[in-house]
Amino acid sequence: MFYPAPIERLIENLTKLPGIGRKTATRLAFFLLNARGSYITELSTSLIDIKEKIRLCSTCFNITDTDPCEVCRDGRRNRSTVCVVEESSHMMVIESSYPGCFRYHILHGVINPIEGIGPDEIRLKELRDRIEREDIKEVIIATNPNIEGNTTAHYIGEMLKPLDVKITRIASGVPVGGDIVYIDPLTIKSSLDNRKNL
Amino acid sequence: MFYPAPIERLIENLTKLPGIGRKTATRLAFFLLNARGSYITELSTSLIDIKEKIRLCSTCFNITDTDPCEVCRDGRRNRSTVCVVEESSHMMVIESSYPGCFRYHILHGVINPIEGIGPDEIRLKELRDRIEREDIKEVIIATNPNIEGNTTAHYIGEMLKPLDVKITRIASGVPVGGDIVYIDPLTIKSSLDNRKNL
Repeated sequence: MFYPAPIERLIENLTKLPGIGRKTATRLAFFLLNARGSYITELSTSLIDIKEKIRLCSTCFNITDTDPCEVCRDGRRNRSTVCVVEESSHMMVIESSYPGCFRYHILHGVINPIEGIGPDEIRLKELRDRIEREDIKEVIIATNPNIEGNTTAHYIGEMLKPLDVKITRIASGVPVGGDIVYIDPLTIKSSLDNRKNL
Repeated sequence: MFYPAPIERLIENLTKLPGIGRKTATRLAFFLLNARGSYITELSTSLIDIKEKIRLCSTCFNITDTDPCEVCRDGRRNRSTVCVVEESSHMMVIESSYPGCFRYHILHGVINPIEGIGPDEIRLKELRDRIEREDIKEVIIATNPNIEGNTTAHYIGEMLKPLDVKITRIASGVPVGGDIVYIDPLTIKSSLDNRKNL
C-alpha cells in the first residue's frame, strides 16, 4: 500500500530536507494537502524566489536580493571597518550582538586543504582588491576559531601585511573548535570586545 | 537585522508548517538556498501537483490521482465489504494491518455538533447511496472510538438499518479516546478481528 504518486513524490522530496524523516514528511504532506491553495502557491513561489532573486552582493558577497546589499548600503555603519566571516549566516549572528556597527566580507568558505579548498576557492582575492580600493582602516577576522578558520585568518594576515590596514582577530571567547552559529550573543560580543592584533 | 526579503518570506512560509519553528525554518531556508536548482524545482512542482492532481475518488472519496482510485480498481479485493473510516490516512493505517482485503468509504470527518459538523457535512449520504447501489453485504465502521466517532458509528447504524446489510464496529482493541493513526498494527488487527454487530 502506498499513497497516490503525487503525494509519494512530495513525501520523497520532503525527506531530502535536513532533519525530516519519512514520518514527519508524511505529516507535512497531509498538512499541505489540506492547506489553502493560496498558501501552497505562496510557499512554492517563495521556494522558486530564493533561487531566482537571491544573489551575492558584488561588494561584500553577502546573500541579497539587491546589489549592493542592505548592509553595504547602510550609511550609518562605520565604513572603515570590515568584518570577515565565513558565511552570511555567521554575519547574521554577529549582527545580533553588534548591530549596525561595521560592514562585512563573506568568504563563502575557509581554506581547507583536506577538502581541496585553497585560497582561490574563497573570496580572498576580492577581499584584497576591496581593501586596496576602499578606505578601510581595520579588518576584523571572524572566521571560526578552528584549524581551517585559524589557517584562513593567518593567510589573510599575510595577504594584507603589505597594505596599510590594521588586522584584528576575534578574541577567544568563542570556544576553540566551536561554530559561531551556535554560540550565545554574549560570548560573541566578548570575542569582539577582546579582539587583538594578529 | 533581518534576512533579504525572499529568504524572510520563505522562512515565514515554512514556520506555518506543523512542528516547524523559526529556528528550524531558518535552517531549512539556508539548506534550500544552497540546494541544487533542480531539487527546488522538483519540490515546488510536487507541492503544486498535490493541489492540482490530487482529488477524491468518486466512489469511496479516498485521495487519489486517478478516478476510481487504486483501491476501488483493485479486483482482488472483497467487493461486498466496505470499511468506513474518518480520513484517508486512517485507511492507510488499516491497510498496513489488513492489506488488500476490502474496500473503503472515507467520511472526511465525523459528526461533531460542538464544531458544527452535522451528518450533511461528511460523506454519509454518499455512503447510503453506495450501499443501495452496490452489492454490499457488510459495512465495517472504523471511526475512532471516541465520542464523535461513536456518535458517527451510531448514526451510520441507524441510517443503514432499513437496508439489508450487516453492520459491524471495530473492536475495543483500540483504546477509547485514542487515535487510529498512532496505534500499533497488532492492536488495529485485533480490533478488526474482534469486530462485533452494532
